[in-house]
Amino acid sequence: AATFRASEHQHIRYNPLQDEWVLVSAHRMKRPWQGQVEPQLLKIVPRHDPLNPLCPGATRANGEVNPHYDGTFLFDNDFPALQPDAPDPGPSDHPLFQAEAARGVCKVMCFHPWSDVTLPLMSVPEIRAVIDAWASVTEELGAQYPWVQIFENKGAMMGCSNPHPHCQVWASSFLPDIAQREERSQRAYQGQHGEPLLMEYGRQELLRKERLVLTSEHWLVLVPFWAVWPFQTLLLPRRHVRRLPELTPTERDDLASIMKKLLIKYDNLFETSFPYSMGWHGAPTGSEAGANWDHWQLHAHYYPPLLRSATVRKFMVGYEMLAQAQRDLTPEQMSSSCSGLSKVLVAVATA
Amino acid sequence: AATFRASEHQHIRYNPLQDEWVLVSAHRMKRPWQGQVEPQLLKIVPRHDPLNPLCPGATRANGEVNPHYDGTFLFDNDFPALQPDAPDPGPSDHPLFQAEAARGVCKVMCFHPWSDVTLPLMSVPEIRAVIDAWASVTEELGAQYPWVQIFENKGAMMGCSNPHPHCQVWASSFLPDIAQREERSQRAYQGQHGEPLLMEYGRQELLRKERLVLTSEHWLVLVPFWAVWPFQTLLLPRRHVRRLPELTPTERDDLASIMKKLLIKYDNLFETSFPYSMGWHGAPTGSEAGANWDHWQLHAHYYPPLLRSATVRKFMVGYEMLAQAQRDLTPEQMSSSCSGLSKVLVAVATA
Ligand SMILES: O=P(O)(O)O[C@H]1O[C@H](CO)[C@@H](O)[C@H](O)[C@H]1O
Ligand SMILES: O=P(O)(O)O[C@H]1O[C@H](CO)[C@@H](O)[C@H](O)[C@H]1O
Repeated sequence: AATFRASEHQHIRYNPLQDEWVLVSAHRMKRPWQGQVEPQLLKIVPRHDPLNPLCPGATRANGEVNPHYDGTFLFDNDFPALQPDAPDPGPSDHPLFQAEAARGVCKVMCFHPWSDVTLPLMSVPEIRAVIDAWASVTEELGAQYPWVQIFENKGAMMGCSNPHPHCQVWASSFLPDIAQREERSQRAYQGQHGEPLLMEYGRQELLRKERLVLTSEHWLVLVPFWAVWPFQTLLLPRRHVRRLPELTPTERDDLASIMKKLLIKYDNLFETSFPYSMGWHGAPTGSEAGANWDHWQLHAHYYPPLLRSATVRKFMVGYEMLAQAQRDLTPEQMSSSCSGLSKVLVAVATA
Repeated sequence: AATFRASEHQHIRYNPLQDEWVLVSAHRMKRPWQGQVEPQLLKIVPRHDPLNPLCPGATRANGEVNPHYDGTFLFDNDFPALQPDAPDPGPSDHPLFQAEAARGVCKVMCFHPWSDVTLPLMSVPEIRAVIDAWASVTEELGAQYPWVQIFENKGAMMGCSNPHPHCQVWASSFLPDIAQREERSQRAYQGQHGEPLLMEYGRQELLRKERLVLTSEHWLVLVPFWAVWPFQTLLLPRRHVRRLPELTPTERDDLASIMKKLLIKYDNLFETSFPYSMGWHGAPTGSEAGANWDHWQLHAHYYPPLLRSATVRKFMVGYEMLAQAQRDLTPEQMSSSCSGLSKVLVAVATA
């Protein structure tokens, strides 16, 4: 029998954080692509558009006028998926028909007053201001809600309907599905091994050096061993930190700088403003915030949709929806294709 | 407090088959859409294209020439994600770095010799031939492999790179993730309630009549209570059937006819050749096929990506990737918007 080589021989890998398997079939990159090509964004985004509801001074759908903000700006989503006062569906009458109450709030956070910048094009102090705003909103909404999900959908391919740099914050009265999975896995790992899963994982990746994308004094960026998306990364603090608000000023500055570096690499990879969904996961908040959550380690996931170029994406369809996630190159190949790529190539004015 | 109304008040619902929750926020359909619009397929597909590797008589990537088939046609995928002989990655050296062997085969099945038809445009006997081919391939590959995943990616939006009507069959040496979840849930339900989960579920939906899309003598199509995609459906036999090959000739004819009806409804919904990924789930096969799998009920899932029109899709991004699936209309609203819609509107020649 041939010797196993991950880059040539399909195999399955386990995601211990979310308790899932992925099929890795690296040899599939060889197949020709005749399928859908994504529309390229050719439109120039104006720096200020009075009709864009995210711009300073613009009027939003509900008639409110935005302030002339000059840093970050947080406001209530005008079309929230979660509202604070939805009534309870009441008890279920059958185990196969279970519904439960869901309450919460949805906010939008603009990163910058200009529409024509993205995080990698912002200065480190400007990114630091975004991090501070993330920490504050986690504290503010976490006082009431057990889960505060901060996420950024970047690019039209990721369903983002407004080019102005922004993210969303959805806080809920329940632990969402993926939070529950991460809670179960991290709790079980701590119980069995006496330390947080992601602390040991980060340490191992630093030793193995096969999947690192960036390291700094306080942070690591790596392609997880179990990554599903071709260019997925995991951003981890080196210190044991449970939630965003716990980050020290030095850790925040360092985070701003490593985020900028990561996003520049992403933009350079296919010479495009790289689309992705990203978001933060930390220990649950709300009334149980005081319980022992030491098994949690703060982290951010980056899930970019692209596979081969700025216009050819990975489709998570058919087999992936019905059976199991499948990837067409190994996480190790991805991290090596990202080494280098740190010069700013994308020529858009930086603030 | 207001009275709960599912179509107005967000809530979460439980998927007992796959052990997952979904956030239902029906009021979100009111928000305006300024995001990505999918390219419309304007190209006319020629009935026969000698350069299309799926056509009768065409030469494929590996140099093989297709026969002049006149029904269905099954062949090995030239770029398989699963190969029969991949070596074993060997034992894992750490619980956070687990890889396992994956072996299998990938096949492609053409439904019809013509490139310009789709299943809803084929005749009932032609669809019946596809069902027979599905049953045979399940038997053939199921003799060796524990899981045989039949799936169809239809439409460019679903990553389908060839308009010729076809599906894929991936058989694997392992139970894929979603199969494992359905195995666990169905086994536990049978253990607790003494009957198959999906038998009781189908019966309940027939009584409740809120989410039925189609019924026939032997089959049901319904929008599951826990559906994630706006127009997701579940296709179930009324009789307890564990796997495709067990279907009787009468059940197969009836299946062909209800599939045609469902797909015509889908095409009519947004007056487009409706994109989707669909696939079959049945009891595991392979060397354990003889064990007791009575908790399994055969079923097919349809996962269509569209939300508002032929060109505006539901994006499962940000919150969905990082926290929990979210839908913007209730399953009950979807099933009522599908009543009617059974006339053939899409004007493409039927065989
Ligand atoms: O094999 P195809 O049709 O080229 O590829 C398509 O289906 C596969 C199985 O669902 C996916 O892994 C691919 O991302 C998708 O593009
Ligand atoms: O709220 P937005 O940006 O309009 O909408 C986008 O993000 C949401 C949260 O991930 C998704 O539910 C929507 O499908 C997507 O289009």
